[in-house]
Amino acid sequence: MDSEAFSTQGSSVYKHTKLFSQCHPLRLLQDDEIEAARSILLHHINETDQQKHEQTKVHFKNVSLHDPPKAMLLPHLDAEAAHVPFEQRPYVPRCVDIYEVKEAAEKVLNDTSVLEAVKQLKLPEDTVVTCDAWMFGADRDSNEETPKYLQPLMYARAPHNHPDSNQYAYPLPFSPRYNLYTGEIVSIDPLATGGKEDGLAYHTAPNYPMAHLGPNEYYPELLDEPRKDLKPLHVVQSEGPSFVVEDDNCIMWQKWRFRIGFNYREGMTIHDVRYDGRPVFYRLSISEMTVPYGDPRSPYHRKQAFDLGDAGAGSCANNLSLGCDCLGAIKYFSGWLSDAEGNPVLAEKVICVHEQDGGIGWKHTNHRTQNPAIVRARNLVVQSIITVGNYEYIFAFVFMQNGNVELETRATGILSTQLIDPGKTSDWGTVVSHGVLAANHQHLFSLRVDPMIDGQLNTVIQEDSVPVPQSEDENPHGNAWRVVKTPFEKSRFADAAPFANRCFKIVNENIINTISHNPVGFKIVPQPCQLILAGKNSVARRRAKFAEHHVWVTRHRDGDLWAGGKWTNQSLQETDGVFDYASRGEDVRNQDLVLWLTFGMTHNPRVEDFPIMPSEITTISLKPADFFSHNPSLDVPQSVQKDNKSVLVQDPWPTEEKKVEGGASTSCCEYATTEKPKL
Amino acid sequence: MDSEAFSTQGSSVYKHTKLFSQCHPLRLLQDDEIEAARSILLHHINETDQQKHEQTKVHFKNVSLHDPPKAMLLPHLDAEAAHVPFEQRPYVPRCVDIYEVKEAAEKVLNDTSVLEAVKQLKLPEDTVVTCDAWMFGADRDSNEETPKYLQPLMYARAPHNHPDSNQYAYPLPFSPRYNLYTGEIVSIDPLATGGKEDGLAYHTAPNYPMAHLGPNEYYPELLDEPRKDLKPLHVVQSEGPSFVVEDDNCIMWQKWRFRIGFNYREGMTIHDVRYDGRPVFYRLSISEMTVPYGDPRSPYHRKQAFDLGDAGAGSCANNLSLGCDCLGAIKYFSGWLSDAEGNPVLAEKVICVHEQDGGIGWKHTNHRTQNPAIVRARNLVVQSIITVGNYEYIFAFVFMQNGNVELETRATGILSTQLIDPGKTSDWGTVVSHGVLAANHQHLFSLRVDPMIDGQLNTVIQEDSVPVPQSEDENPHGNAWRVVKTPFEKSRFADAAPFANRCFKIVNENIINTISHNPVGFKIVPQPCQLILAGKNSVARRRAKFAEHHVWVTRHRDGDLWAGGKWTNQSLQETDGVFDYASRGEDVRNQDLVLWLTFGMTHNPRVEDFPIMPSEITTISLKPADFFSHNPSLDVPQSVQKDNKSVLVQDPWPTEEKKVEGGASTSCCEYATTEKPKL
Repeated sequence: MDSEAFSTQGSSVYKHTKLFSQCHPLRLLQDDEIEAARSILLHHINETDQQKHEQTKVHFKNVSLHDPPKAMLLPHLDAEAAHVPFEQRPYVPRCVDIYEVKEAAEKVLNDTSVLEAVKQLKLPEDTVVTCDAWMFGADRDSNEETPKYLQPLMYARAPHNHPDSNQYAYPLPFSPRYNLYTGEIVSIDPLATGGKEDGLAYHTAPNYPMAHLGPNEYYPELLDEPRKDLKPLHVVQSEGPSFVVEDDNCIMWQKWRFRIGFNYREGMTIHDVRYDGRPVFYRLSISEMTVPYGDPRSPYHRKQAFDLGDAGAGSCANNLSLGCDCLGAIKYFSGWLSDAEGNPVLAEKVICVHEQDGGIGWKHTNHRTQNPAIVRARNLVVQSIITVGNYEYIFAFVFMQNGNVELETRATGILSTQLIDPGKTSDWGTVVSHGVLAANHQHLFSLRVDPMIDGQLNTVIQEDSVPVPQSEDENPHGNAWRVVKTPFEKSRFADAAPFANRCFKIVNENIINTISHNPVGFKIVPQPCQLILAGKNSVARRRAKFAEHHVWVTRHRDGDLWAGGKWTNQSLQETDGVFDYASRGEDVRNQDLVLWLTFGMTHNPRVEDFPIMPSEITTISLKPADFFSHNPSLDVPQSVQKDNKSVLVQDPWPTEEKKVEGGASTSCCEYATTEKPKL
Repeated sequence: MDSEAFSTQGSSVYKHTKLFSQCHPLRLLQDDEIEAARSILLHHINETDQQKHEQTKVHFKNVSLHDPPKAMLLPHLDAEAAHVPFEQRPYVPRCVDIYEVKEAAEKVLNDTSVLEAVKQLKLPEDTVVTCDAWMFGADRDSNEETPKYLQPLMYARAPHNHPDSNQYAYPLPFSPRYNLYTGEIVSIDPLATGGKEDGLAYHTAPNYPMAHLGPNEYYPELLDEPRKDLKPLHVVQSEGPSFVVEDDNCIMWQKWRFRIGFNYREGMTIHDVRYDGRPVFYRLSISEMTVPYGDPRSPYHRKQAFDLGDAGAGSCANNLSLGCDCLGAIKYFSGWLSDAEGNPVLAEKVICVHEQDGGIGWKHTNHRTQNPAIVRARNLVVQSIITVGNYEYIFAFVFMQNGNVELETRATGILSTQLIDPGKTSDWGTVVSHGVLAANHQHLFSLRVDPMIDGQLNTVIQEDSVPVPQSEDENPHGNAWRVVKTPFEKSRFADAAPFANRCFKIVNENIINTISHNPVGFKIVPQPCQLILAGKNSVARRRAKFAEHHVWVTRHRDGDLWAGGKWTNQSLQETDGVFDYASRGEDVRNQDLVLWLTFGMTHNPRVEDFPIMPSEITTISLKPADFFSHNPSLDVPQSVQKDNKSVLVQDPWPTEEKKVEGGASTSCCEYATTEKPKL
């Protein structure tokens, strides 16, 4: 057992090693491991204290499995894939990271200065005021060491005072600044509530500044009866799912094999992805996301969430419920987090795995014989949902029979809102409820792809489709284009270029597809999203340099996991993030490399996004490109009625009596087709 | 009854009016109507013949419902929406278009010169040769009137000679040019089979030019046994679907109401879309698609399909099969086409309608109470599948509870291939099977959106998100951006600009959303696809001007339905298409307007796209933007286990015995959760 300690950015970090020699190095962290790591750390601190005659009080923020060094782990995984028994595989220690910070107490709501500020609003008696503990963000003027602040946004419940009332329909016009270390309110900052006519002015509100607001509820108990005309739709998998779970967290499905991971920061991670035994991806993870807001009026200019670095996608993961989040046969995975004393806390059902029908996978009808051949696509969905205050993100890695691996992101939840004076509109957002402004903002994610396409030495090639100039020699009719291929030699960034049909291929130049004579690879089309809008000199942009480009290619180094830097809270600039990793200018051609994709959206809200936002879906696809020697879903069984048991809809739908005649109730059956089709 | 006749581009068109006073003007065309229209035309021709002492032989290409003039139809639809009884609604005549062309005989395969050319290939005896009757396309030198040609591509069946063998693995190195009017082979054109080293050269193939080819099959009977580990997944709708079909072709579902249309050219069309009684879209259709290929070697440069204008999406529509194409409760619609004598021919089950689960529609967990609120999205899918020779396209209009209407396009089927000499590779495509080159090509579609957002007078507004320069007065911290709105005043084109977050809103400036104070509207984000790559002076580009821009806005005129022009076959340039419609420079602000979207993909094939291509999916969304006063899916019932009946996956899956204990067989049940979750 070895231990080391270091300190950075005001937080102390202790890292300890603990040996569980008989478990897989990628097994999810267990409760007894957390307990063991905690006692090792406390024992170490106790000894140091005794030497120094001090007494340290430790507050644990996170206890999490340390990502094993690749040089140790990959030989183990390769041995595993070659069916080497566990005892004979190379030993990989399981290490635990422990993070400690000062405990945060939420005293804001009971602070006398806050209570006085609320009183000034002349709200109805018994109004319940609430507090969203926003991170302080960062300021352009903060060259001195900024104390650890919160800049909470305050809301109120609707007069009916239901605990699940939508507070975001009642934003308060001030924000207390709270010092996390001293536990004191530093100031009560006023919030601008003006419209287009008011510029950056404050104090434009009338005497009763919230009188024009009204309830705008999403919680079912607070709504009228739901619509009645939605008939049930069940997904029935009578023989169970097509996947198998082995060795705790290893999933095998339709020639795919991979392991699931979970930690407080990234939440769900995917490891050691192989297809039919061939290595494809060493690790897939969402590395960071930033949500900068576009209202220039202080302190709104500091609203910029880093939902992984500041909050933690694992810490914010939902406990998923059978039948609510997914349909069909659902497998859950739980993880372990820790409390402030470093004790293990069960994060129950934070990942779910299930299959979905994916529509028509391929089809062709031979017009000579009129014989169709058709398969339906079946997809495997590995999903986790996080709630970060007002917003929800639904992340799903989707594995497909055609060789694709996709990351689907759904943004839903509730807009973070602010007060606006009666009758006014704003350049900085949309009025989504009376007196409620939802500011424009961006969601910018970073997907980290650590590939191992048929091995560890890979190359990224940019491919553009470029018209060939018309000439008698080469392109006499003007219809030709050329695919221009540019391999990455050194670590650097690149951008999406949809009008050039730009894609990026991660290939293994050492292994050539025998049919096409191209290197085997996977292809990525970056989503051509608008990149970070904040100006070049703004702090908002300096601390999220990863969001300045769509694609980054870096040389692999253990621990290079954080696109926006390891420490994002109140960061003044991105430090030790993907910009720095790429700036090393290391060789990446035919090397162990990592590809990072920035994707997301500029969200200028619609009224329809309130009081709760319909899922906004973004998908990134990793598609095999000359990795296989043919369509890998060729051997999926044909789609036939005998297996699918679809039901013909006739007018009217069979009544109960008819159903009894047919012997069918809730089970599948086919009703007879009418002789002459009704048009 | 009135009749008129006119002629253009070598095809004669007769248009006849026929009255069916008691049927809805948008009812699908019926067999008796086709028969009546046919006899009216033949009677008319007979009379004319008698006067002229001639005898005309008529060959019918298409008999189809004439899209009613909007000025007649819309008042009828508005009256219908206001529940005015049919007899009291304005009368709308039902007209029929009849198109007549010379009959085409397929003599190619038996032509002696073709047989001689096949003999030269020294194929094994009994090899079955096949012929794909490609349109001739158009040439830059064809300033004279080009006769109506075909330029078929020739293939062979694999030696095992199964009728469903994949011929595209055996391309022949020549193409006969066939005159449709004279029924004669004009020439046997050689096809280039060289690689990168050969430039535009011909006759580079060895003596046995096809000896290096081998079978590459997709048809299930010709493959090994399919994989065995895919378990059944059934969609069970025990109470039937949530939609109702009324008045033959009117569908009502989840507050949406619309009618389905079908004709030989556009295939499936959507009419009179209303939400909760509010008009949204007058007509939605796929107007055209072009598929230009990028091989510069003649005659490949003329490969450019116009699958609507040349072939007809309705004429090529698949007869859909229960349980093969879709899961769940399926409603089919059939249409009527015509044969060469003008007699009605049933196009059976060419459109299907069914519901699909759409994943999580919205979710929020109140972290104070830990109470989640969650709904699953249910979607309504209106689908049609077309087979155009080698390729398949699956078009689906998807209606959603959140107010979205989407067009999902899946491209599948088989690549159109050509011979390449052994061991060579090409700049113009990918070798996807030994000796088989799949040339680079583009698929460029045009979606025609005829809106009626709360009425007929609409405006299109372009919205860009543009950073505000940093300044003390307006944007002191550099984080703000502005949404710059540019209304279309005159008909014109515009392009996608994803890095500016560009979207287009179709709004009704006369009706203001009372919450946001913006005009009510729907929003479209154009897919930022690569536009047509063929050079500015190429015929390929001149005949597909619609594919030069992503967005076109034109003033509505009856009959302006064809983005690529009405007559595309062997067209030398797009005539009377969207470029011409837009060039009129008509007022489109607060007018009856039409918006056209070009979308698609540049397809540089992968080996994985052969022998059959996994569906490549493209989606265009029309989303409400301040059309409603809140999220319209707010009243969808909550997602709960009681209704959804999902099943917990445990290891191992319950055996038969356990199932009997639990009383569950194929019906839904929940297995007990384990006490302590297994990680």
